[in-house]
Amino acid sequence: MAAVSIADIFEMDAHDPLAPVRDRFQLPEGVIYLDGNSLGALPRQTPAHVAHVVESQWGRDLIRSWNRHDWIGMPQRLGAKIAGLIGAQGDEVVACDSTSVNLFKLLHGAFALSPSRTTILCERAGFPTDRYMAQSVVDLAGGRGVKAVERTQIADAIGEDTAVVLLTHVDYRSGHKLDMAAVNRAAKDKGALVLWDLSHSAGAIDVDLAASGADLAVGCGYKYLNGGPGAPAFLYVGKELQERLSSPLPGWMGHAQPFAFWQGYEPAPGIDRFLCGTPPILAMAALESGLAQFESVDIGALFAKGQALCDLYIDLMQGLSQRHGFALASPKNPDERGSHISFAHPEAYAICQALISRGVIGDFRTPDLLRMGFTPLYTRYRDVWEAVQILADIMDSGVWDDARFSQKQRVT
Amino acid sequence: MAAVSIADIFEMDAHDPLAPVRDRFQLPEGVIYLDGNSLGALPRQTPAHVAHVVESQWGRDLIRSWNRHDWIGMPQRLGAKIAGLIGAQGDEVVACDSTSVNLFKLLHGAFALSPSRTTILCERAGFPTDRYMAQSVVDLAGGRGVKAVERTQIADAIGEDTAVVLLTHVDYRSGHKLDMAAVNRAAKDKGALVLWDLSHSAGAIDVDLAASGADLAVGCGYKYLNGGPGAPAFLYVGKELQERLSSPLPGWMGHAQPFAFWQGYEPAPGIDRFLCGTPPILAMAALESGLAQFESVDIGALFAKGQALCDLYIDLMQGLSQRHGFALASPKNPDERGSHISFAHPEAYAICQALISRGVIGDFRTPDLLRMGFTPLYTRYRDVWEAVQILADIMDSGVWDDARFSQKQRVT
Repeated sequence: MAAVSIADIFEMDAHDPLAPVRDRFQLPEGVIYLDGNSLGALPRQTPAHVAHVVESQWGRDLIRSWNRHDWIGMPQRLGAKIAGLIGAQGDEVVACDSTSVNLFKLLHGAFALSPSRTTILCERAGFPTDRYMAQSVVDLAGGRGVKAVERTQIADAIGEDTAVVLLTHVDYRSGHKLDMAAVNRAAKDKGALVLWDLSHSAGAIDVDLAASGADLAVGCGYKYLNGGPGAPAFLYVGKELQERLSSPLPGWMGHAQPFAFWQGYEPAPGIDRFLCGTPPILAMAALESGLAQFESVDIGALFAKGQALCDLYIDLMQGLSQRHGFALASPKNPDERGSHISFAHPEAYAICQALISRGVIGDFRTPDLLRMGFTPLYTRYRDVWEAVQILADIMDSGVWDDARFSQKQRVT
Repeated sequence: MAAVSIADIFEMDAHDPLAPVRDRFQLPEGVIYLDGNSLGALPRQTPAHVAHVVESQWGRDLIRSWNRHDWIGMPQRLGAKIAGLIGAQGDEVVACDSTSVNLFKLLHGAFALSPSRTTILCERAGFPTDRYMAQSVVDLAGGRGVKAVERTQIADAIGEDTAVVLLTHVDYRSGHKLDMAAVNRAAKDKGALVLWDLSHSAGAIDVDLAASGADLAVGCGYKYLNGGPGAPAFLYVGKELQERLSSPLPGWMGHAQPFAFWQGYEPAPGIDRFLCGTPPILAMAALESGLAQFESVDIGALFAKGQALCDLYIDLMQGLSQRHGFALASPKNPDERGSHISFAHPEAYAICQALISRGVIGDFRTPDLLRMGFTPLYTRYRDVWEAVQILADIMDSGVWDDARFSQKQRVT
């Protein structure tokens, strides 16, 4: 743990211009929450906002709320807020459905654009659902197949037969971040489209879809956007592609005239055509409140703090790594990673359980990763320090090697 | 208005064994709500239940809630409750996604089962999204086309090339109900599958999927199930079909080992394989509360009351129909309809607006229908009486013919 002392840590928190933002969240006593990359924490204003939508809107105005409280415009309204966090224009993003469903919509839409291109290129060890959806799209569309390569080999692997490249911007295990602009350039050179999964990026690190020339993206509402468990996801389609892509899920909300009840489908102009069914308004309301927590926050400073938290964690883990065999499984260079850090350890599962029993909530990821997420909105430098102290105590005392922490089915 | 007097009406409410159930709902003062078939009313216990899930579960237990509060089991838990309302077994229904997305999943799954059958048969004037999805499935799967006939001609139109018959059990405009058992029999004789859209049936009228030999169904959570705006929908797959159908949307929640993060997709056994992404827990919680309102309610009596309310409305409308040219657009026979009644009138839009301005909330459905839904859980006989009195007043005074009620874009 080298040069950093607890006095330094207090100093860091004391001088953190974002420290007051933590008060916007309701974090339980006695818990150090380093799992905001799985489920973001509860914003203090969310209970009241959700209660308002439930009682004053649904309860009192009933069906009239669709107009009176502009429920009907929520996918676009929330989308515009998300756009501001990922370098997109307001009318290039909508909040809707789940990440999985949005992946399917855009992947299929993009694949269908170039019938002569028969392959989806993806990474060998990406988030599994991304792969499943790619396979399904290829199967449905009669393509040749899904080609999977190491994520660092993607740019070289794009070929004449590649219709779409599907990539997770930040890997869910290692936190490794791809160079979005470089991949987009390589794909454009070869005439392929790229669909980015921003689930572990949006709200945590700098993403600039416009500057990097991104075609398509999807992402998650319940991680760094703090929209609540299973919050609606989002999708992004760059403006020049919007009118060229069709959704394979032509629901009534994506229709040009949703209230005319025509028997023929006519896609809405612009981003709206990628909507499908009726949005879950109560879940949308919670996401709206989650997004409001970014208001009046200096986004550049926020993302810098996320990286500083990660740096601190890596730094503090040095002693433990040597004593107890933790191996850093994330990039050391902040430019090459997201806002979570994984260490490999053969007993990572039991260690993670032991940490949870001591109030430090991180994640185990198969086969051997201890993953910690550093949400810059509400994580303090002292949380990182304390988490490592508790981990050191668990390792030095050997308490992790207890039957109650041994492997079992686990849900995250 | 013939023989029914206000004294009779009070008598009917006084002797209604279901009258106390209305108290389970928070209905605004001064409103007669006859639009529960568009958006069900707010159950009184929903605000507290949603607040509990937001604050005590998400807020306090954070990611651990997936296990601790069995969030992970919600799709099946809610599905089993819905199953009890539609004559299915508990493990044949899950709550998830939107009706549109569920339609796509089951329609595609069923269509893919019989490659030699190349047509989806549907009704000419069904709910438009049903038709859009059918067309999309046929397009994706390289089928021959969607064949649309009058809904009463369906059984005769099923042919050797029919892969799936897609039908709305209760028509969203007329309320006309199909004979489910008869259609299922006809389809089985011809080797076709039937997918039922129960959006306007579930929770309002008697549905017996098992007894009628139903293969597949989807339905809506925010109408008669009172799950809140845009509540998660449900899907039903009869047990003998579950292992034969594949979902075209293979998300991680439908995987046999969702937490193993395998790169290969292996569908879960049983109904679980039709899940896709992470469910919106807050919206699921509201649906859970909506479903709880059916507890300790005599379902047979409930459905009988819905029909009695419809009968009363038709009866009370007789005088008005003669005086002001309303034409009944719904079946008179209770066995042939759902729990909403439509009257055609050339000025239905303006009349509907005038009614809303007087606190009677029903629906206009293009081109000329005034639609009233009678949710038996919370509608009183006197609501029907008063609604017709107010309509009579609007018609007799001619006030509906006012510029402020004239046609404009409307959202329901």
